[in-house]
Amino acid sequence: MGQPAILKSQRDDFPGWYQDVVAKAELAENGAVRGTMVIRPYGYGLWERMQSELDARIKRAGAENVYLPLLIPYSYIQKEAEHVKGFKFELATVTHAGGKQLEEALTIRPSSETLFGDVMARWVQSHRDLPLLLNQWANVVRWELRPRLFLRTTEFLWQEGHTAHATAAGASAYALRILTDVYQDFMGRVLALPVLVGRKTRRERFAGAVNTLTCEALMRDGKALQMATSHELGQNFSRAFGINFADSDGSQQFAWTTSWGSSTRMIGGLIMAHGDEYGLRLPPMIAPVQVVIVVVHDEPAVLRVADQLARHLIDQGIRARVDRDLTRSLGRRIIDWELKGVPIRVELGSRDVAAHRCVLVRRDTRSKESVAESEAVALIGGALSAIQQNLYEDRLQALRAGIIETSSIEAAIEAAQRGFARLPYALITEESEAALAQRGVTVRCIQDSDGHVPTSEDQPGLTAIVGRAY
Amino acid sequence: MGQPAILKSQRDDFPGWYQDVVAKAELAENGAVRGTMVIRPYGYGLWERMQSELDARIKRAGAENVYLPLLIPYSYIQKEAEHVKGFKFELATVTHAGGKQLEEALTIRPSSETLFGDVMARWVQSHRDLPLLLNQWANVVRWELRPRLFLRTTEFLWQEGHTAHATAAGASAYALRILTDVYQDFMGRVLALPVLVGRKTRRERFAGAVNTLTCEALMRDGKALQMATSHELGQNFSRAFGINFADSDGSQQFAWTTSWGSSTRMIGGLIMAHGDEYGLRLPPMIAPVQVVIVVVHDEPAVLRVADQLARHLIDQGIRARVDRDLTRSLGRRIIDWELKGVPIRVELGSRDVAAHRCVLVRRDTRSKESVAESEAVALIGGALSAIQQNLYEDRLQALRAGIIETSSIEAAIEAAQRGFARLPYALITEESEAALAQRGVTVRCIQDSDGHVPTSEDQPGLTAIVGRAY
Repeated sequence: MGQPAILKSQRDDFPGWYQDVVAKAELAENGAVRGTMVIRPYGYGLWERMQSELDARIKRAGAENVYLPLLIPYSYIQKEAEHVKGFKFELATVTHAGGKQLEEALTIRPSSETLFGDVMARWVQSHRDLPLLLNQWANVVRWELRPRLFLRTTEFLWQEGHTAHATAAGASAYALRILTDVYQDFMGRVLALPVLVGRKTRRERFAGAVNTLTCEALMRDGKALQMATSHELGQNFSRAFGINFADSDGSQQFAWTTSWGSSTRMIGGLIMAHGDEYGLRLPPMIAPVQVVIVVVHDEPAVLRVADQLARHLIDQGIRARVDRDLTRSLGRRIIDWELKGVPIRVELGSRDVAAHRCVLVRRDTRSKESVAESEAVALIGGALSAIQQNLYEDRLQALRAGIIETSSIEAAIEAAQRGFARLPYALITEESEAALAQRGVTVRCIQDSDGHVPTSEDQPGLTAIVGRAY
Repeated sequence: MGQPAILKSQRDDFPGWYQDVVAKAELAENGAVRGTMVIRPYGYGLWERMQSELDARIKRAGAENVYLPLLIPYSYIQKEAEHVKGFKFELATVTHAGGKQLEEALTIRPSSETLFGDVMARWVQSHRDLPLLLNQWANVVRWELRPRLFLRTTEFLWQEGHTAHATAAGASAYALRILTDVYQDFMGRVLALPVLVGRKTRRERFAGAVNTLTCEALMRDGKALQMATSHELGQNFSRAFGINFADSDGSQQFAWTTSWGSSTRMIGGLIMAHGDEYGLRLPPMIAPVQVVIVVVHDEPAVLRVADQLARHLIDQGIRARVDRDLTRSLGRRIIDWELKGVPIRVELGSRDVAAHRCVLVRRDTRSKESVAESEAVALIGGALSAIQQNLYEDRLQALRAGIIETSSIEAAIEAAQRGFARLPYALITEESEAALAQRGVTVRCIQDSDGHVPTSEDQPGLTAIVGRAY
């Protein structure tokens, strides 16, 4: 490759490559407590943009943000466990506080589900209080035995939405709206990640849900990453927590609820979907730095032009910065900016400045071009859009190529070693799903023949997408 | 007052009034665990705006956001307690996780100070790594025996900044910059709250700090609320955590650090500084709803004009909404919008619509005016600015009137029963400060003769501001 191997090979050692990228691009590192994570400025910059883009979409869908406490009485968790079969998280428990043993042990929220149940039961009284559309951005803790930065950590950051509706149809439509208008739209437009959307099988559903909708992305090692889910909870949750309301005819009804979430895990997906042997490739919309201007020679004229160009870019709303760290070799600096996935690198040396030119390098294609200084700002603006589009197209092509049509469980298991397999949903039974699971393969989602979310499992012509998953 | 007394009287029972406003304006309620807080959408809307305005200023000051873990090994806290005399928080302790007792107990962060020490020691190697300017938005837990919503809760939301510098002068200038350019500017411009800025006395300093700078606001009951603080930590913190660097001459130096924070407590300050007998009065810049259009009659023409006006306002970037809830009496709806402190209320009845007019009511002055429908949008835009300005002027006048000049400790104690007292700093000794404390009065800050932050305690002509405080 003509450069020092600073990363393990993506092709030969995908997990090693992932770990190297997270560390060397300065995204995150392990915290002092096993399984916890320190998110460094460059990694947190990704999360801030994810948060703001998702939050705007969540608000457009009418939901309002709240904040519920970190600590939950252990009895709340027990209550939920009684009502919701299969509920199980590895909990962290607070037994002492303020220097004394507590009368009742407290749980650090593994999610805020029980507290949402509690407040919704109080805030919903009449049909006029519905729909109640709430969301929360917070940290949660689930004790992880095999942690992996961003993908599976003992503490992670996420949003969880919880809504209550007067009718089953209202809840169902809202869960789908969140999946497509919030999650799928965000992933496609901002993360440049085409995702498969569909229903989960009964086996793969969230405990307590009557329907789980999912966004599944294909990683470069052929595995799936579940990027976000949206659940219809029927009346299960409202019965457990007493979320009922006086209908317009005066009768008492249980509400129909939904819940939906996405987390810092998406950063792992972003890395593993777009990254290449040289490191991260960031879609411009999410990149903390969109353009880096690398000063090649320590000369006043070069520094002046670099600063001027940065200012012009910033005036256009482009996130640009100048790298003037001439204490490090040019080769090393270039390698580092490639590793960090900055979409466009501008190289500026004394000969370029004398000729009123500069060199633009695209991170997605690694193509180089010498352009007139006077045209650089306009060309960069155009190139950022082109990179955003190209990364999406690239992943769309990979996703299409990565789905292999099969017509038997055995063939699907075989195909799932390299990517996704599609097969008729009719072949998915309790037994065949167990057979898949034994080989490390799961049904990622059920789709209709057009690749859309089916309205029920009983629709004719459904297909199942199976694969290995993170 | 010609209306039902839905709030306790601010004048007669300030704490009762505060509690009523928090509950009835739907800002927050108690969580299931004693001392914790559920922040409702309307209250969280205030916090979201505070966060985004502060965050923009923090970024302009060059700091970058990170995220450090919630859980801290207990040994870290012990290490800090050994190094920093007077360090003490009421901690919540996790002893069990994942179904097993932990080998080492974990603490839920009372602040992230020890973890910042840990990462800064690793990230700072050379003088080229300085200044290192970091900030974090997160929840923290300190066990509170006498909790009070927003003002003192077991869990609260805040930001804490931690920075490391190569020189004492660099750290000192940055701590002051944060105080004035971030905190004071935000409070003045956004919260419409003039604050006193100054140094703390040695007695009132943050444990481990060599200098604590503070923003103090005057509440309507004459008490002070410390709104934010910024600390110079000298080399105390870097010695405790081993934050050192190779200077340009090759010698190893300890860094000079700062820390600074502000929290959801500011919401309490906003309520207690601006609120009146009718409830909240929100400065337009922080108000989740800036204009509410109250539909008086359930007629298509009225609803149409209301929607149209809302659309025009929203197009101008104004946060407007229509109240069409005709199931409740007009009087009750008006009382509720006043309680919620919405800066402008538009009343729209059938007679108004027929005459192409509407009624504008300002929350700050409660003045009413009938205006032409065609001029409403422009008038509202102007009125929002005027309200923002007027609330600031109002509080500035109250602050000026609230500071009483005194020349003895006894007189200052007397004056502090009604507001702030100013006296020569020369009168503040260890003994007199203890005498103040016995009467529930503390030195809020030390200022120079122009009311600015003094560069040292030894400057001539310094004054002390004393008062009772939350």
